[in-house]
Amino acid sequence: MHMILLSGGSGKRLWPLSNDTRSKQFIKIFRHEDGYESMVQRVYRQILTAIPDAQVTIATSKSQVSAIHNQLGFDVGLSIEPCRRDTFPAIALATAYLHDVLHVDENEAVVVCPVDPFVDESYFVCLKRLWERAQEGDSRLVLMGIEPTYPSAKYGYIIPEGGGEGKERYAFREKPSEEVAKSYIAQGALWNGGVFAYKLRYVLEKSRELLGTAEYAELFARYETLRRISFDYAVAEREQSIEVLRYAGLWKDLGTWNTLTEAMEEQTVGEVMLSDNCRNVHAVNELGVPILVMGCSDLVVAASPSGILVSDKGQSSYIKPLVDAIDQQVMFAEKSWGSFLVLDVEENSMTIKVTLNPGHRMNYHSHEKRDEVWTVIAGQGRTIVDGMEQPIRAGDVVTMEAGCRHTVIADTELQMIEVQLGTEINVADKRKYEFPE
Amino acid sequence: MHMILLSGGSGKRLWPLSNDTRSKQFIKIFRHEDGYESMVQRVYRQILTAIPDAQVTIATSKSQVSAIHNQLGFDVGLSIEPCRRDTFPAIALATAYLHDVLHVDENEAVVVCPVDPFVDESYFVCLKRLWERAQEGDSRLVLMGIEPTYPSAKYGYIIPEGGGEGKERYAFREKPSEEVAKSYIAQGALWNGGVFAYKLRYVLEKSRELLGTAEYAELFARYETLRRISFDYAVAEREQSIEVLRYAGLWKDLGTWNTLTEAMEEQTVGEVMLSDNCRNVHAVNELGVPILVMGCSDLVVAASPSGILVSDKGQSSYIKPLVDAIDQQVMFAEKSWGSFLVLDVEENSMTIKVTLNPGHRMNYHSHEKRDEVWTVIAGQGRTIVDGMEQPIRAGDVVTMEAGCRHTVIADTELQMIEVQLGTEINVADKRKYEFPE
Repeated sequence: MHMILLSGGSGKRLWPLSNDTRSKQFIKIFRHEDGYESMVQRVYRQILTAIPDAQVTIATSKSQVSAIHNQLGFDVGLSIEPCRRDTFPAIALATAYLHDVLHVDENEAVVVCPVDPFVDESYFVCLKRLWERAQEGDSRLVLMGIEPTYPSAKYGYIIPEGGGEGKERYAFREKPSEEVAKSYIAQGALWNGGVFAYKLRYVLEKSRELLGTAEYAELFARYETLRRISFDYAVAEREQSIEVLRYAGLWKDLGTWNTLTEAMEEQTVGEVMLSDNCRNVHAVNELGVPILVMGCSDLVVAASPSGILVSDKGQSSYIKPLVDAIDQQVMFAEKSWGSFLVLDVEENSMTIKVTLNPGHRMNYHSHEKRDEVWTVIAGQGRTIVDGMEQPIRAGDVVTMEAGCRHTVIADTELQMIEVQLGTEINVADKRKYEFPE
Repeated sequence: MHMILLSGGSGKRLWPLSNDTRSKQFIKIFRHEDGYESMVQRVYRQILTAIPDAQVTIATSKSQVSAIHNQLGFDVGLSIEPCRRDTFPAIALATAYLHDVLHVDENEAVVVCPVDPFVDESYFVCLKRLWERAQEGDSRLVLMGIEPTYPSAKYGYIIPEGGGEGKERYAFREKPSEEVAKSYIAQGALWNGGVFAYKLRYVLEKSRELLGTAEYAELFARYETLRRISFDYAVAEREQSIEVLRYAGLWKDLGTWNTLTEAMEEQTVGEVMLSDNCRNVHAVNELGVPILVMGCSDLVVAASPSGILVSDKGQSSYIKPLVDAIDQQVMFAEKSWGSFLVLDVEENSMTIKVTLNPGHRMNYHSHEKRDEVWTVIAGQGRTIVDGMEQPIRAGDVVTMEAGCRHTVIADTELQMIEVQLGTEINVADKRKYEFPE
């Protein structure tokens, strides 16, 4: 059973834990076994448990590939978008990927769903039924309709409009006022969670019709020129042959700090102390220093290397314009090979902790305008500097002048303190080379 | 005019900005000219402005000497207590220091006051009057009585009890209940701010009487064996010959976050953004990352390399037991030669940013159980490693194995990233040597 997971764009609504490079689905906030897992790790694990024959392809942008490999490993299928172009181009590309690259038959059904809903097992049972109805039924598009729990003004609604010839027809409405949402719900409307199934052929046809091609290579090459358009607008709202499966289980959209903390099992993650008289306080601490919260109510506190948020929960949905005003460099990132954390920024230097996963390596690269010094603090590996390979271990120091080509290969988990020195330190100052043999 | 400033002990009430090594008087929180100054910097500057002929001796413990030199320079007089023994031994030692070391005549008066009241110029006018009355009047002890602004249960009270033979007599009462405080105030009581003046001879006599000696060298040598006893209890409460000068000007004891923030001119210090709907929020940020506060009221937020506090203002006075429960290493310290900041702590390594002030140097020292690597990130200076001196500048790397003797001398302001490597990293692992010629 093929599935396409849509891994959405960067977001600032969960700042400082989400930012330009880390989308909310990568924040490790859900207690699981000995540690914490992210939304994407949670949903991927849930899929593999509930649908053992699931073959997952994650549709995502280039910028998330490192984080996905870091969190899910290298076995997961990826349809990589060269840039962001909304859900219809993304789904069209991923569908073409399944057909052209994975050679899935065009008569096979596929389920598409977002990577970040907070759900339980019954959701995956419903996904299987969606797939079966798309495979066996006679509707071109099978949608999940989520039973509303309140008249939300944030979601899209699927509204039954009565049918001709024994088939129900549906209208789609985005983000109505609360009043209007109430009237939709009175008419039997369901939330549109962006979950649906179809036979590949259906979306390949829509691609040809709307984008001029359904070939993967061509879609990929022309991706940047494609119009930004949502799947709902381009396809679902215009389709007459629709089946809707009702879903009444757990479904939470954890898009704001307020809703996210509702899904947390514990009040705190990381080193946090709450005084006894705190009420409805949640705190997430990704920093190495303790947080103490005293005598507060209805508060969320979140700290990461990017910053510190202290917000009334009810106010947390208004965060975006405030965070947009903060001019920030990236202080932390998960890469395919490990992660980095900025420790110190001075006028002519930057100090970074680099962690490489065992067996992984950096690109072979050079910088034009900065020297670098690596001090290995843990593990073992090898460096290649201007073509010369040398073993390294904790305590070793490697100095690299501007222009010199270098990389590091981790034989065990490897940690280094990297000091960058120069008057123009800039992430863009990086030239990559083929890895030396 | 000689003055003794009592610089009190370490405190956790202003955590995370105060801690075991940084007392509250060293927190830079008051806007002054282009930057911020600490309580001790503020009061020292105020003294030098209001009393140009003031000769200040700060009575403090060994542990604060580095911070005082860092903030006030090296010209300030110091009476250094080998350990903490409450105010009477501290004042006795400082008085003996004035007499034996600075050769101040025993018939000269001295004013004693704490280093950390938040006051304006009128306070220093009153200090001068105190000194004049001690010098010229016939009372043995001249005290400042602060006009109470509310029936506080936190302070000591000086209560007039009527006099015989034309002289008023006073009772001293510490921390009464609010009810009792009201009745004191009705009797004309004043707050005891720990500010008083006397002729040296008076305290030298008390020293001989209560400590067995008034000689500086002997007091210093025996300091650890002296009984912990306050000046009020040992001297003021037993003295019949007292004059009290009433002070009605600005006086604030900034001992809690609540009272401290009342004295801040601005709502924020450091990189802080408050949403428009914040009410009565103060935030102090000593970290290099932004703080965003949204929709909060009556809140104090404080962040330093030691931790992050988020507290309802009314609750902030209950902080001590909560902070006591946090087991913390020192993450930041001001030293006589500059400062250090812990950037990263791992199992077998610690990374620190070291800043040396121009012309200053570290002790010549070695570590038994750790190697160190210095990467110079700014400035110029010299290292001496196992007796060999070498110039250093930004970009240079110095490696020091365990056991090797080393120091660094800053010719300009000098910054280095120090990576410590070893399985038993410990501040106590330090052996000092004479500085090589």
